[in-house]
Amino acid sequence: MKKHNFSAGPCILPQEVFQEASQSILDFNNSGLSILEISHRSADFVSVMEEAQNLALELLGLQDKGYKALFLQGGASMQFLMTAYNLLDSKAAYLNTGTWSSKAIKEAKLFGEVIEVASSKDKNFNYIPKDYSIPEDADYFHCTSNNTIFGTQIKEFPNTDVPIVCDMSSDIFSRQLNFEDFDLIYAGAQKNMGPAGTVLVVVKENLLGNVDRQIPSMMDYQVHISKDSMFNTPPVYAVYVSMLTMRWIKKNGGIDAMEKRNAEKAALLYEEIDRNPLFEGFAAKEDRSPMNLTFNLKDEAHKDQFDTLWKDAGVNGLSGHRSVGGYRASMYNALSIESVQVVVDLMQKLEKEIN
Amino acid sequence: MKKHNFSAGPCILPQEVFQEASQSILDFNNSGLSILEISHRSADFVSVMEEAQNLALELLGLQDKGYKALFLQGGASMQFLMTAYNLLDSKAAYLNTGTWSSKAIKEAKLFGEVIEVASSKDKNFNYIPKDYSIPEDADYFHCTSNNTIFGTQIKEFPNTDVPIVCDMSSDIFSRQLNFEDFDLIYAGAQKNMGPAGTVLVVVKENLLGNVDRQIPSMMDYQVHISKDSMFNTPPVYAVYVSMLTMRWIKKNGGIDAMEKRNAEKAALLYEEIDRNPLFEGFAAKEDRSPMNLTFNLKDEAHKDQFDTLWKDAGVNGLSGHRSVGGYRASMYNALSIESVQVVVDLMQKLEKEIN
Repeated sequence: MKKHNFSAGPCILPQEVFQEASQSILDFNNSGLSILEISHRSADFVSVMEEAQNLALELLGLQDKGYKALFLQGGASMQFLMTAYNLLDSKAAYLNTGTWSSKAIKEAKLFGEVIEVASSKDKNFNYIPKDYSIPEDADYFHCTSNNTIFGTQIKEFPNTDVPIVCDMSSDIFSRQLNFEDFDLIYAGAQKNMGPAGTVLVVVKENLLGNVDRQIPSMMDYQVHISKDSMFNTPPVYAVYVSMLTMRWIKKNGGIDAMEKRNAEKAALLYEEIDRNPLFEGFAAKEDRSPMNLTFNLKDEAHKDQFDTLWKDAGVNGLSGHRSVGGYRASMYNALSIESVQVVVDLMQKLEKEIN
Repeated sequence: MKKHNFSAGPCILPQEVFQEASQSILDFNNSGLSILEISHRSADFVSVMEEAQNLALELLGLQDKGYKALFLQGGASMQFLMTAYNLLDSKAAYLNTGTWSSKAIKEAKLFGEVIEVASSKDKNFNYIPKDYSIPEDADYFHCTSNNTIFGTQIKEFPNTDVPIVCDMSSDIFSRQLNFEDFDLIYAGAQKNMGPAGTVLVVVKENLLGNVDRQIPSMMDYQVHISKDSMFNTPPVYAVYVSMLTMRWIKKNGGIDAMEKRNAEKAALLYEEIDRNPLFEGFAAKEDRSPMNLTFNLKDEAHKDQFDTLWKDAGVNGLSGHRSVGGYRASMYNALSIESVQVVVDLMQKLEKEIN
């Protein structure tokens, strides 16, 4: 049975990426060797790493603009720490839009003063705070562009002279932004970019080298830049599959095309959430994410009935995060609109069964 | 043409592991989903992580002995840092047997006093120092069991009351040791354990929690233990392939059987290195590693001729590291004795061609 994978991450990737990724385990580039057994210093893999770095900058429109792209390990969680290690000299400003921001704040506090400019904790993070000011003397402003758990997304970023650091783990390559407004972007691969096991960091080089502390080698962006992400053995396969996925994004029209498709998919499901009398959305309408759509049954009594419907239909990963309950449809770039239609049809089927 | 892969790491893994690893990219556990697109919180992957942790402890004979096994990211390079973060309270003792030890020493110095108990730098690390004493008040003693670059291996570990921390990246699961003598063992996966992208840490729990500093979450072994290596999204695929490789080790007789086979392979090539008048070994005989066999041509004039011979025969990765030159045959668990015989035959062929 065909599966419809709405998993929040690790998540669906394009089928043609899976095909090539599988083949390369048996024979990479007709070398007679598996991608898993070649040296990371081999010409074949160095070329993969270069292409991955170039594609990331190209898709974001940041080539030749003073940025470097790195593929590191430890996911966004390690970036909560590394950003502060490298950038927090005296104080930093953080916007708290939920779990991931909160974790980033916790780690940053080990390195200096943290100003929480605003928080949506008062309403279980179901909205994005808008009226806040960023101290002009902050070393940087940190925000999370999309909250995977609560299904919110920042639509407008603050206009500030303070450098902006943004965790784009769950919506990178899904929508067009003026990426030059950001000084450091990071993103765990396991949503729109690739499998779990690597994290992309895109950083403006002139942002670095301005803190006094001694930075351990593995924490130091400048060390990784000087070695082109090869200071230590990189996560070869995760970088390779990310490269394949970015190739697919480029071939299919780049970020603009992804954004258009994602908007159509999101409109289809949000319209049903708003129309269907059995369901209600969780996130504030103006802050709704097209990546992670959170919604609940108005009457939990129908839960078992709906869960049976979607599980029987080959739908995977629709259960909401424990912090929110209900349902979460994660609809990353590779998810087809046909899969979204399957869920919409099931919501309508439930409505008919009940009435 | 069949390849003979002597790469130092990432390196050869068993062919049946590649087969299963490739199939799982297309369909994991008959779920209709790729291993790359399933949630790390799914029952299927939680079971992979548990099996990987259990297999690591079982192969080392450390089950029910107060140890925990973790699968983290960042390789041994991150462990140079994490060991010091978690264990270095005032001072630590380090044995310097080459590149990796030197890097570990550099990172540890950021956290406290480092006593270098001995070094073999005087002879370009071609031997393992033996006469040294470990300060009784050191927080721990750190050593590298096998040096991948220079081809040396510690055969006897010091008898000390100081906790022993050992980087076993390049010889874990290749030989039997009294693993209970070690308090913390770490190993980048990309030699005998799996592909690049994860690092195994086996730590005695009572060693932890004894330093005063605040440890960032991602650096804190206790945080990772409390979450069973799932504090953040783990490197799913690297852990999965490591699990498959450990299953293969167990099915093929465990560490004892690996050690026997590795000894036979090493004897075959070292005998030829010592017999063949064209070659000489690099490492001191008593410290020779069965994992990484380093040797040189006595006369560099024959280099092109020998290089053509082995490259034409499908041999991969035989060039020595730039710090040593010459040749390095990395002969991990999955390498067959037939591949070793191919190199021996080529060395003899070169001898005949020249005489």
